[in-house]
Amino acid sequence: MSPSHQAPPAQDYLDRSRWPADGWRLAETRFDSSDLGVTETLFSVGNGYLGLRGNVEEGRESHTHGTFVNGFHETWPIQHAEEAFGFAKVGQTIVNVPDAKVIRLYIDDEPLLLPVADILEYERAIDFREGVLRRELLWRTPAGKRVRVRSSRMVSFHDKHLAVLSFEVTMLDDAAPVAISSQMLNRQDGEDEYHVRAEAMGAGFDPRRSERLDRRVLDPQHHCSDVETGRVELGYRTHDSGMTLAVAADHIFETENTYTTRAHSEDDLAKMTYRVDAQPGQPIRLTKLVTYHTSRGVPARELVDRCRRTLDRVREQDLEQQYEHQRAWLADFWERSDVEVPGNEAIQQAIRWNLFQVAQASARAEGHGFPAKGVSGSGYSGHYFWDTEIYVLPFLTYTSPHIARGALRFRYSLLDHARKRATELAQQGALYAWRTINGEEASAYYAAGTAQYHINADISYALTQYVRATGDTDFLTREGIDVLVETARMWADLGFWRSEEDGTFHIHGVTGPDEYTTVVNDNLFTNVMARHNLARAADAVRMLAERDGPQYDQVLARLDLRESEIAEWERVAAGMAIPYDEHLGVHPQDQHFLEREVWDLDHTPLDRRPLLLNYHPLVIYRFQVLKQADVVLALFLHGDEFTADQKRADFEYYDPITTGDSTLSAVVQSIMAAEVGYADLAYRYFLSALFVDLADRHHNTSDGVHVASTGGVWSALACGFGGFRDHGGSFTIDPRLPEHWEGLVYRVTLHGTRVRVTVRPAEVELVVEDGDAATLTVRDQLVTVTKGEPVTVQLHGQGPRLEGEPPPVPGRRRSDGTVITAIVPGC
Amino acid sequence: MSPSHQAPPAQDYLDRSRWPADGWRLAETRFDSSDLGVTETLFSVGNGYLGLRGNVEEGRESHTHGTFVNGFHETWPIQHAEEAFGFAKVGQTIVNVPDAKVIRLYIDDEPLLLPVADILEYERAIDFREGVLRRELLWRTPAGKRVRVRSSRMVSFHDKHLAVLSFEVTMLDDAAPVAISSQMLNRQDGEDEYHVRAEAMGAGFDPRRSERLDRRVLDPQHHCSDVETGRVELGYRTHDSGMTLAVAADHIFETENTYTTRAHSEDDLAKMTYRVDAQPGQPIRLTKLVTYHTSRGVPARELVDRCRRTLDRVREQDLEQQYEHQRAWLADFWERSDVEVPGNEAIQQAIRWNLFQVAQASARAEGHGFPAKGVSGSGYSGHYFWDTEIYVLPFLTYTSPHIARGALRFRYSLLDHARKRATELAQQGALYAWRTINGEEASAYYAAGTAQYHINADISYALTQYVRATGDTDFLTREGIDVLVETARMWADLGFWRSEEDGTFHIHGVTGPDEYTTVVNDNLFTNVMARHNLARAADAVRMLAERDGPQYDQVLARLDLRESEIAEWERVAAGMAIPYDEHLGVHPQDQHFLEREVWDLDHTPLDRRPLLLNYHPLVIYRFQVLKQADVVLALFLHGDEFTADQKRADFEYYDPITTGDSTLSAVVQSIMAAEVGYADLAYRYFLSALFVDLADRHHNTSDGVHVASTGGVWSALACGFGGFRDHGGSFTIDPRLPEHWEGLVYRVTLHGTRVRVTVRPAEVELVVEDGDAATLTVRDQLVTVTKGEPVTVQLHGQGPRLEGEPPPVPGRRRSDGTVITAIVPGC
Repeated sequence: MSPSHQAPPAQDYLDRSRWPADGWRLAETRFDSSDLGVTETLFSVGNGYLGLRGNVEEGRESHTHGTFVNGFHETWPIQHAEEAFGFAKVGQTIVNVPDAKVIRLYIDDEPLLLPVADILEYERAIDFREGVLRRELLWRTPAGKRVRVRSSRMVSFHDKHLAVLSFEVTMLDDAAPVAISSQMLNRQDGEDEYHVRAEAMGAGFDPRRSERLDRRVLDPQHHCSDVETGRVELGYRTHDSGMTLAVAADHIFETENTYTTRAHSEDDLAKMTYRVDAQPGQPIRLTKLVTYHTSRGVPARELVDRCRRTLDRVREQDLEQQYEHQRAWLADFWERSDVEVPGNEAIQQAIRWNLFQVAQASARAEGHGFPAKGVSGSGYSGHYFWDTEIYVLPFLTYTSPHIARGALRFRYSLLDHARKRATELAQQGALYAWRTINGEEASAYYAAGTAQYHINADISYALTQYVRATGDTDFLTREGIDVLVETARMWADLGFWRSEEDGTFHIHGVTGPDEYTTVVNDNLFTNVMARHNLARAADAVRMLAERDGPQYDQVLARLDLRESEIAEWERVAAGMAIPYDEHLGVHPQDQHFLEREVWDLDHTPLDRRPLLLNYHPLVIYRFQVLKQADVVLALFLHGDEFTADQKRADFEYYDPITTGDSTLSAVVQSIMAAEVGYADLAYRYFLSALFVDLADRHHNTSDGVHVASTGGVWSALACGFGGFRDHGGSFTIDPRLPEHWEGLVYRVTLHGTRVRVTVRPAEVELVVEDGDAATLTVRDQLVTVTKGEPVTVQLHGQGPRLEGEPPPVPGRRRSDGTVITAIVPGC
Repeated sequence: MSPSHQAPPAQDYLDRSRWPADGWRLAETRFDSSDLGVTETLFSVGNGYLGLRGNVEEGRESHTHGTFVNGFHETWPIQHAEEAFGFAKVGQTIVNVPDAKVIRLYIDDEPLLLPVADILEYERAIDFREGVLRRELLWRTPAGKRVRVRSSRMVSFHDKHLAVLSFEVTMLDDAAPVAISSQMLNRQDGEDEYHVRAEAMGAGFDPRRSERLDRRVLDPQHHCSDVETGRVELGYRTHDSGMTLAVAADHIFETENTYTTRAHSEDDLAKMTYRVDAQPGQPIRLTKLVTYHTSRGVPARELVDRCRRTLDRVREQDLEQQYEHQRAWLADFWERSDVEVPGNEAIQQAIRWNLFQVAQASARAEGHGFPAKGVSGSGYSGHYFWDTEIYVLPFLTYTSPHIARGALRFRYSLLDHARKRATELAQQGALYAWRTINGEEASAYYAAGTAQYHINADISYALTQYVRATGDTDFLTREGIDVLVETARMWADLGFWRSEEDGTFHIHGVTGPDEYTTVVNDNLFTNVMARHNLARAADAVRMLAERDGPQYDQVLARLDLRESEIAEWERVAAGMAIPYDEHLGVHPQDQHFLEREVWDLDHTPLDRRPLLLNYHPLVIYRFQVLKQADVVLALFLHGDEFTADQKRADFEYYDPITTGDSTLSAVVQSIMAAEVGYADLAYRYFLSALFVDLADRHHNTSDGVHVASTGGVWSALACGFGGFRDHGGSFTIDPRLPEHWEGLVYRVTLHGTRVRVTVRPAEVELVVEDGDAATLTVRDQLVTVTKGEPVTVQLHGQGPRLEGEPPPVPGRRRSDGTVITAIVPGC
């Protein structure tokens, strides 16, 4: 990111007259129909399995109605405009499943429509301790009658398949006929206003959005409604992928008013309608218990049965118990995971909103990955990327390791797909899909997709990080080792020795994290990560060998593994080429990166940003210009393999030519800016990441939460300002507290012991909150902290301090003495 | 091409029991339904505007029914599986237009169906002096009656819009009811057996085939039939591109038998039916005059009028006159263009078939390019590529310059499209579409499409070659200069100076001719061609300046051109980086080509060839392996810029790693093998090219004639064996006659003077056949040959002789002393 273009001044991004600062709540005090797409995302509720966007209950005005079930997808044959061997074949798109959020209200036959309604009072809020989206408003109807409308919406963390909605209407002064229509509506096949609107606006392409299928996706299998019990049911099967879904809702209707009830169902709609003769002061309360069940192929009818069982069970319980469960789950979550910035409610609010999003994207993912947008939107078609491993899992590994384990086991479950894909790519071992839901490669543009072979090493990195943090060698030896071995095999086969004698191992024709430079030789990030992958695979096998138990033999047999192969991985790791330019003193992003022209970001018009929406890839690829951190990410993930000077030099070289057009960039730039000493810049990057969605800084929050960035916010706090690292199995803390912060509190769980780390300007305090003891190194001082015995380590400053910003790249000199210049293509 | 895999032994490829050797005719003496796709292509007739595939008259059994009008295309929005800025938007596909070839025959109500018919005698032949496809067969009907059936089919070179078909039936022994149904049939919308068959066979993708549109392409506008005059008419408009077409046919029916006539027309069919009470010995003759008129938008009804005028005019003439015109046109063509290899009928036949194909693809193209398959098939969707300029125009420039001029003027007409495309690619000047019909980029895979910026220089090369050969400076100053200037501008803007001081100019992120290595830096071919483009543009402007006339000022004004810009082109040309590896003594295909692993073609299983159908692009691109000549093509086109030693070294390096998976490769490898002294290899490559289609060596002749290769055959003869070059404006001859040839005769027209060059083992004879005089250099001896005064130059041998084949690349040593090895991916 070129700070002069993108990095924000250190200010607050939100209009506090609409969004009051509150450390535990996000509240909107004024309805605004101009940014519905954003608020639908900000107020989405989910549990990693089921997600409901923050659409208004009334179901009309919206940017994108959205209800998503993680992994529930449709497939279709990818049509390449020009086909080639091995191109991805199976398109996969998360399905916008039937919408159970709709509760329409009519008073005197006039509908409540927020954009035009006369709203006297309004608040919509979610408390991160409660996990319930609540709205309360006072409406003056066209006939002048005042009505109080309260509603709430919760997706249960405790009960994976359950959502609880409530709707309460009270006529304050006058009687009126009130009608409430609670619906479950299958919006497939053209009812999605988002697409209609995008087309009407003449909006161009945006590859970050979801694929659109211009056909029916959900074939009806079942519909039913029962006026007596208030139960409605719908069942479907996806047309091509054959997945099945059932959704059912129970309605509990309570009022002292007289009323009549009707039930109705058809293929794409099931609803309950209540007509009430409402008297002033008599509340009308509707509770809607909703359950979704999905499957890869179980008949929909069977899923309907599961829905019935869920509803029967929940209905037997006191409803308050569901809210209780939710609060308990969240209390536990915050106890493990909270990050505190005392004295700054606005920052605190944004931090908790981000961490809460990680919970909403991952808590009950169980057997699935974390979609790029969680379950809050259909951006990136609901696919799983490396975001999970590199941006989200660090937080979960250190705060909710049981969730991290589930995500890693999901990758293990895809291993056969990855083996098949490696064969298609003429490689041994396994090659994970760059983007996928079902395990098959779905990246239709290989240069920024399949070519990102580093996905293999990203998964291995997260896996070894998890094992290191938790000590869960059981998982490693039973399943994880298979992933490590098969991915290591791919690397050893993909690269080559320059020659027998030369002793350097090279990996050609790959794309690193930065998608503004593709299909290159010896991408530094890739090589560093592959080296780690190979070494850790060898370590894991050798560890088993030392144990000398039956597991070792099992692994050798299961994976057809020989000693010679392990030795070769170690040789390859040792010989891995790491490009370095002696004169500039920087690590080139790839072997030939520095030969490219430099893109002059300082003089690129803002209306040509982001570059990917304004320049042909051939133009972008020709230049030194980055979409996102690449070398700089390697400096963070493998900080022990670079010297402090190298890190500073690399950061200074890349920062000015990094656009930050990817939201994956800011958190990483923040962490490394902090480490090398650009404190102001680090803070600006941090704010930029912190408010990516809350302030819609990339203009696509309407597509869903940038989940990777929300996870990265934790890394920016714990690792960037908090200075936490876990290189090579030892845990270290070298903090970089922002100058104007009085403190920073975060937690890490190490081998089951939860340590609370409090960073203050002149000290670090460690407290064991749960478990027995943990050993860490604080600024080179090895400390062991035990339960009940906090440790405080004095700090002398917050690391190096560098003034201003990194100098621009143009103007520097190459080894031949020539001066680097920069241009703006097409200008 | 690795000779051990692909280059054929020097043998004859055709089964002479079916295909007798005859220097002037291609005849098939046995019907075979197993290779219909091939014979339909081999016997296609066309004139560069209109083409009819060699489908049997009866219209049933076929691989692909095909009738094509050059440039008559449908468009559609290209759907990219993943969109990006600047990707090609408008798909273009040549339309299979209504089929007027169909003449069905029924005897005793039994249809003539060749695959099952009892055929007693059969010949199908085309004489290259006559230009009429003729078939004669003797059929014993199921009832045992012998019938003589003679038919012919001609597309007129003289009358662009005219095809003449004839059909003659004679009952030899018995009387019988005979029905003849002459049809014009619009086969759109699913009647194309090729696609049906390909799908039924489960055939995979093949990017070399045509796009398929699963919808109606031709919307009916008119149909009519007149039983009195025997005239039938159809009119259409393409659904999306809005092009219009009319086809009409007059029927002349002659017989002594009694008969009745019916006429019928509907949207997709117009036909005349003749029911004849046929007596033995009484011939039944049907002549079908067919005319096609097409337009970009004139109403179809108006085109019907044009058809009527054409038919009225032709019908007034003696029919024999049409055949006379055809023979006269071809006599003229052969007089200008024939290449003779005395004493070898089989080779002679194949040579003339190839040259005849160029005539059929180009003669009346007028205002269009030459599609990759001419008008003989829909392969590559009827698009125009660089094939026209680099493979076909050399032949035409030196034998039919008026046709070459038309093709170059076509490029001039696309200049505004090219300017627009340059802007889309953030470049100044003009960038021609890599593949197109209407001028807009249609390459949906940029790495092997748009990235081939060298198209600009290819066009400029052909343009300057044409001007050099013809002296047509009028074309240069009025139109050609605009092309040179705008293309030069693109190059100067695309590349960059490494630094102010360094003085080398680099072009990054482009693809050269070899599509097995894409998006590279400083592709040698591209840089050498761009250098030429820049220098010739500067030359042209300077030449105008010297003339000091109003034209110079007009050009400056028209093109907003300044002296400083011209000087910059010259600086850029002088500073152009030409990669060279001192140690290996070879020119790398691109700056980093030699860093790649070498693909071991010798050990690649044949069932994994061609590579593009068996390996993911990412795999192929990672290796030193070539689809087609790249550096070697530069050595040919710019032979004066390389030393003899360099040429040999480069040829020896690249030949063993060139697959020849493209048919554009063999002719070039042949020419340079001949020049550097690998005579046997040169001859094998020549044969390989000569029989590409005749022996279906690439298994896709069914998609149409490989027109570039047919043009390349002339270059292989005239330039390869004949040793003709025109570097820098002087014409030179340095022959390489194959050892077992007694002689080789070819013609070149230089500034209007046609010189016949006869190469014999010990001499070269030059004779002016037309015009006054020409000056050439034969083996360093400057000779002027004038009308009536032949010149003979003695030869001492046929250039250098190298034994065997170039040594394999693996085993050679790099500059660091390490040995190059090779592998087979995935094995």
